[in-house]
Amino acid sequence: MDAAAVSKVAGQLLEMEEVEVAPPRAHEVRIRILCTSLCHTDVTFWRMKDFPAMYPSILGHEAAGVVESVGDGVVEVAVGDMVVPVFSAQCGDCPDCLSDRSNICSGLPDRPGMPRDGTTRFSYPATGEPIHNFISVSSFTEYTVVDVAHVVRLEPGVSPAMACLLSCGVSTGVGAAWKVAAVEPGSSVAVFSRRRWASDWQVAQGCRMRGAKRIVGVDLNPEKRVIGKRLGVTDFINPNDIGGKSVSEGWGKTIVLGLASGAATIGIPWHDILRGRSVVGSLFGGLKPKTDIPILAQKYLDKELELEEFVTHDMGFDEINTAFELLTQGKCLDPVHHLDGRGKGERRRGQAQGKCLRVRVGVTD
Amino acid sequence: MDAAAVSKVAGQLLEMEEVEVAPPRAHEVRIRILCTSLCHTDVTFWRMKDFPAMYPSILGHEAAGVVESVGDGVVEVAVGDMVVPVFSAQCGDCPDCLSDRSNICSGLPDRPGMPRDGTTRFSYPATGEPIHNFISVSSFTEYTVVDVAHVVRLEPGVSPAMACLLSCGVSTGVGAAWKVAAVEPGSSVAVFSRRRWASDWQVAQGCRMRGAKRIVGVDLNPEKRVIGKRLGVTDFINPNDIGGKSVSEGWGKTIVLGLASGAATIGIPWHDILRGRSVVGSLFGGLKPKTDIPILAQKYLDKELELEEFVTHDMGFDEINTAFELLTQGKCLDPVHHLDGRGKGERRRGQAQGKCLRVRVGVTD
Repeated sequence: MDAAAVSKVAGQLLEMEEVEVAPPRAHEVRIRILCTSLCHTDVTFWRMKDFPAMYPSILGHEAAGVVESVGDGVVEVAVGDMVVPVFSAQCGDCPDCLSDRSNICSGLPDRPGMPRDGTTRFSYPATGEPIHNFISVSSFTEYTVVDVAHVVRLEPGVSPAMACLLSCGVSTGVGAAWKVAAVEPGSSVAVFSRRRWASDWQVAQGCRMRGAKRIVGVDLNPEKRVIGKRLGVTDFINPNDIGGKSVSEGWGKTIVLGLASGAATIGIPWHDILRGRSVVGSLFGGLKPKTDIPILAQKYLDKELELEEFVTHDMGFDEINTAFELLTQGKCLDPVHHLDGRGKGERRRGQAQGKCLRVRVGVTD
Repeated sequence: MDAAAVSKVAGQLLEMEEVEVAPPRAHEVRIRILCTSLCHTDVTFWRMKDFPAMYPSILGHEAAGVVESVGDGVVEVAVGDMVVPVFSAQCGDCPDCLSDRSNICSGLPDRPGMPRDGTTRFSYPATGEPIHNFISVSSFTEYTVVDVAHVVRLEPGVSPAMACLLSCGVSTGVGAAWKVAAVEPGSSVAVFSRRRWASDWQVAQGCRMRGAKRIVGVDLNPEKRVIGKRLGVTDFINPNDIGGKSVSEGWGKTIVLGLASGAATIGIPWHDILRGRSVVGSLFGGLKPKTDIPILAQKYLDKELELEEFVTHDMGFDEINTAFELLTQGKCLDPVHHLDGRGKGERRRGQAQGKCLRVRVGVTD
């Protein structure tokens, strides 16, 4: 019996409950979660009232943990390995995984539940009622089961408190600058920020790492400016103050990343794109998880990639609803939950300093 | 005093009139037009009731001719040279012309009239009333004046009757496959066709030249299928019969080309682009006119590029309104006007054979 934060109704408080986490089947890995983060995508799904077959479910998809057991056929990781589960797969064998052009693995079905059979490993012990899996990860739980195609092994060195940041937000942002925009040294970029997103400044960090000369942060939230400057933003613009186009004719790219609610449509005036501009979609920053997350981990160890700056709060796992509250109120930008046993209340940097970029929530096991 | 087909009111018949064509100023070239084509973009502008400072004007922008005189500072072409004027400039000195990434010259102002001073070289002899220049070319006239940045010199060998096809439609279509999509050998492409556009099959031809394995023409007009097959289309689909997405996840590109009327907007559902797709705008097929038109001309001479197939009618210059009528009624796809003195009525292939891809209109001088 293990503890999990279960979502039962869209937009309502999560409930800490005892759940059954079944052993891993073939090609699956059971992971003891040490740290997990609250990404705004969790909140987007949590708010979707009409999301199909969603509840009850265990949200969360930014995490780091240790392999507790493995199913048949799993040779890539072993018990005791430090891993990060990732919503984006890399089977390694499909045409997309074998191509340099794509990071959208087509080797496993893209569907709710465990990818190979559509079922879930979570249930209520008393009734056997299933609890839904969330985007192949489900990390708001002491234990989870993840398909090995969604598991990235990390060499020792990066703490789980930092490693979990690589499993979505940091990779999505840095990757968008690194792989998708392929920002060139000396170039100028504009980073359009959403109010509660930390990934925006992770994009800025990616641009800085790629040698961009001018990184203009376009943002409504003045509280994000201090951290933005530290991560490489050179200028700030309030989008209410400007008009016109920000992308070069001839070759300028607009990269879109992150999840929009519902049936959002991007409207591009024909004349704005005709003269050689482009709009490029980016999932997981164009990164192949197993190939690229270890590279980012090494960049962190080499002090080229900043992770600590993104963390402002440590909280207990039982305070997870507080993290949702902080995030949805715009009092922090992206809560990260750490389950590495360092205990709740260890630090509340963001609150103490009047800024809050991510919330860390730690549980004792 | 020279003859020109003057547009006086949006959507109304052009009037054949005597006009004054002033001598070329510095950096300008006066061209005796030998062949000119009617492109659908002429019709799009001709129909725009609210286009600013448009009338009276001399439309036309697909043409070939001979240099009649040059202004100060013109060293690139000389009297007697065969040239094609192009709406898209290549000054050769600006950052865009010096970059491989862009074909959108930024060295000259993008404005109505002659690019360097905003005036026009056309006027009525009796009153001096100016007649507007059209997108830096104005080819429905015996003589026109064009900035040298918009003039491409061709080696002898390609007849003006074929050369004029390179100054917009063929280049726009072939270039979109060649430079913008950079179609790879063995790949599959879909070409979404507009009813009266020949450029669609020029895109197909570009895909064939690049070695595409499967070229699916998506088109409502069954009359275009015969010529489509000859130019490389391997399969046809009626868009009324299909749904779903036609672009690969991970790296699939949608290239948009050609002019839409007014304030048209391209609506992209967020989820359709997020997983690594992109939408890329393409003006003049991503080609740099002075660099790439001579390459296409050589490909025509080497029989790699088909041009003849696009011509189905020869008409006199005084029949230009018939060409507009055929084009707007969908009885041909893109009229091309030839002014090379071969005389009207030389052939009416399209009408005789029940198909019509382009109309050629020839005038005697």
